[in-house]
Amino acid sequence: MKGNCLIAQSGGPTAAINATLAGVYSGAKENENIDIIYGGLNGIEGIMQGKLVDLAPILEKDDNLELLKNTPSSFLGSCRYKLKGFDVAEEEYKKIFDVFEKFNIKYFFYIGGNDSMDTVLRLKQYQQANDRGVTVIGVPKTIDNDLYEVDHTPGFGSAAKYIATTVKEIACDTAVYDMDSIVVVEVMGRNAGWLTLSAGLARDSKGKCAADLIYLPEVPFSYEKLMADIKKVMENKRQVIIVVSEGIKLEDGSFIAEAKQKDMFGHGQLGGAAKNVEAKIKEALGVKTRSIEINVLQRCAAHCLSKTDIDESFMMGRMGAKLAAEGKTGVMVGSVRKDGKEYGLEIGCGDIENIANKEKKVPESYINAEKNGLAQPAYDYLEPLVMGEIQVKTEKGIPVHLNIKDFI
Amino acid sequence: MKGNCLIAQSGGPTAAINATLAGVYSGAKENENIDIIYGGLNGIEGIMQGKLVDLAPILEKDDNLELLKNTPSSFLGSCRYKLKGFDVAEEEYKKIFDVFEKFNIKYFFYIGGNDSMDTVLRLKQYQQANDRGVTVIGVPKTIDNDLYEVDHTPGFGSAAKYIATTVKEIACDTAVYDMDSIVVVEVMGRNAGWLTLSAGLARDSKGKCAADLIYLPEVPFSYEKLMADIKKVMENKRQVIIVVSEGIKLEDGSFIAEAKQKDMFGHGQLGGAAKNVEAKIKEALGVKTRSIEINVLQRCAAHCLSKTDIDESFMMGRMGAKLAAEGKTGVMVGSVRKDGKEYGLEIGCGDIENIANKEKKVPESYINAEKNGLAQPAYDYLEPLVMGEIQVKTEKGIPVHLNIKDFI
Repeated sequence: MKGNCLIAQSGGPTAAINATLAGVYSGAKENENIDIIYGGLNGIEGIMQGKLVDLAPILEKDDNLELLKNTPSSFLGSCRYKLKGFDVAEEEYKKIFDVFEKFNIKYFFYIGGNDSMDTVLRLKQYQQANDRGVTVIGVPKTIDNDLYEVDHTPGFGSAAKYIATTVKEIACDTAVYDMDSIVVVEVMGRNAGWLTLSAGLARDSKGKCAADLIYLPEVPFSYEKLMADIKKVMENKRQVIIVVSEGIKLEDGSFIAEAKQKDMFGHGQLGGAAKNVEAKIKEALGVKTRSIEINVLQRCAAHCLSKTDIDESFMMGRMGAKLAAEGKTGVMVGSVRKDGKEYGLEIGCGDIENIANKEKKVPESYINAEKNGLAQPAYDYLEPLVMGEIQVKTEKGIPVHLNIKDFI
Repeated sequence: MKGNCLIAQSGGPTAAINATLAGVYSGAKENENIDIIYGGLNGIEGIMQGKLVDLAPILEKDDNLELLKNTPSSFLGSCRYKLKGFDVAEEEYKKIFDVFEKFNIKYFFYIGGNDSMDTVLRLKQYQQANDRGVTVIGVPKTIDNDLYEVDHTPGFGSAAKYIATTVKEIACDTAVYDMDSIVVVEVMGRNAGWLTLSAGLARDSKGKCAADLIYLPEVPFSYEKLMADIKKVMENKRQVIIVVSEGIKLEDGSFIAEAKQKDMFGHGQLGGAAKNVEAKIKEALGVKTRSIEINVLQRCAAHCLSKTDIDESFMMGRMGAKLAAEGKTGVMVGSVRKDGKEYGLEIGCGDIENIANKEKKVPESYINAEKNGLAQPAYDYLEPLVMGEIQVKTEKGIPVHLNIKDFI
């Protein structure tokens, strides 16, 4: 199929999603069937409005493609727009495919997480039913690491590195006074505890300056157990670093941070788990306690990238272009970890039906017997993903990023 | 004076205070009058309890001295203990000088901020009145940059770099959705707005991904003006990044974040300025608003150091040792910026009486006419301080730090 291609980004931004965009672009350039490579602004929502930009004049200039790789957040903008079924909202699908037709788009690449893969799945189904001649490929990203069909998601490694680095520095900061004190750090992750788990990489050789207690949403949370856990840690040290997921829930299933409002996908918006835990600790133990929300920094801290993550995110993007060239459609780029002692990733094709609207949780074998930390398999899984540093480009000491608004 | 020397750290930790410790150590080593170089644990409080450690066996091992330079937070621990006058609490002074005598301490170096310099001043005065034969030298540090007698304080440059980097990344993160939204970032600085000012370094060439509005504690804050300022920014862009100091005050002098309790020095403990501003914006403008507290990370983010800051902090430490060797006592290491276009720092001797218990504010000339951002002199002052990066040592992808608890 000769024609143009379109790449768009969707869902929450990550520090690596632009490396994937750079990868798709670089792969699409090598496909002689592809003429113009467009970027779609603000995901499927912007595409419906016909907001497409020709990427070559932007990315072929200077070292912009390299700069793009280390630019955090979605360069093309994003959306959280969820397509309804085409049985109830066919006009949306028509609008999208009409835009595709207008710009002669034969290949569409959508970079995103679970919800975005749902969009890819629906577009594929509509395409199958209506034969509009467009190849649709999903390329995964999410800091949450909760997608099936991949060993881990692009973006997760950098977020994990930032969280572990930051928690280790917080532990250093907390250790200075000769007094009992507790810090509760809150990490993102509504239902899957991968990001919280990665705080476990904040440890030194002797476990003296580390994340001491880690609570995942996969394990029912109990204040009684928390207080007992803290007392046990305090037998050996005066300062305790606790890391909790925003999504920790009590035995009865209620969130520690009560869901206050729903987001556009109907998910409850959380916030304040650490604040609540802080208050309970002060009440129960009377110890000086501080809570810290790592907040959006965990998904946009491009000054603390994992080189492994950026390299892999780029390769995943390139594989997206390759799958399209091979005639695949309605699939997502997948990955499997190679067997053997040395870390390696095999990047290939994943089944999108096994991805959309599902969430991969932290397996029980990754959690220690006390349910407050990591078991060895968790370290084995996580450690390769945060390896390597990238020296980002700076100007007057501050990182430089590529900004789409400079070009449109 | 032949004898031993003692170095201690006090006050809030910074990412550069250990570079200063490394500098004093390195300078003291070259002084042939100094035999053993001790570190005092937990500042003056630990010294009163005789908690001294010989530093040579720690810092001469492997590359520990280099590692110390890039370790955040106070390696020797800290305290917030404030000495009373020796007219009312002479026993404390006796205790300290008895420890000095017991360990044959002839040189005492205290690394800290305003409150620590008060301790240096008092020890000097007691020494003058009682002739206990000890040289007392202050070496400045504080992320707050509010000390006189220095062009800027060691630790400030790294904190400024981290804040500007982070705010720029938050701006990238916020720009992705095609909707109106506002982020309020809260930065430390009770009475002096230096750290908040440094968020102004988060800008790109065209001002599209930047800190849009900056409010310092030096300027009376008005919600009415804030809303007008936001509306003006929104004429040109949909996302607005606002940076506020934790210490912003209304015209009548009341803090936005009401002081809830006093810390050990009687300062009101602030928190929640951004949360309050967030609530008011939502109420007044009905725009999606999020608040982010940068929290302790701004003082301990050793993964984002300013090379200029670390180099200068080390040199300030070395100058402390030099002043002692020259027979100075009761002084603090000071600095003056060299004249001329090219940035340079002259490190010398400062007058401690002009430092203790005083706070240097941001001058009016650094603030723009609209009182919501930087004037050119602020850029000229700040930019050299954040220059240069340091590739910190990592193990399995996570920074390695030197930990005193591995040695005692």
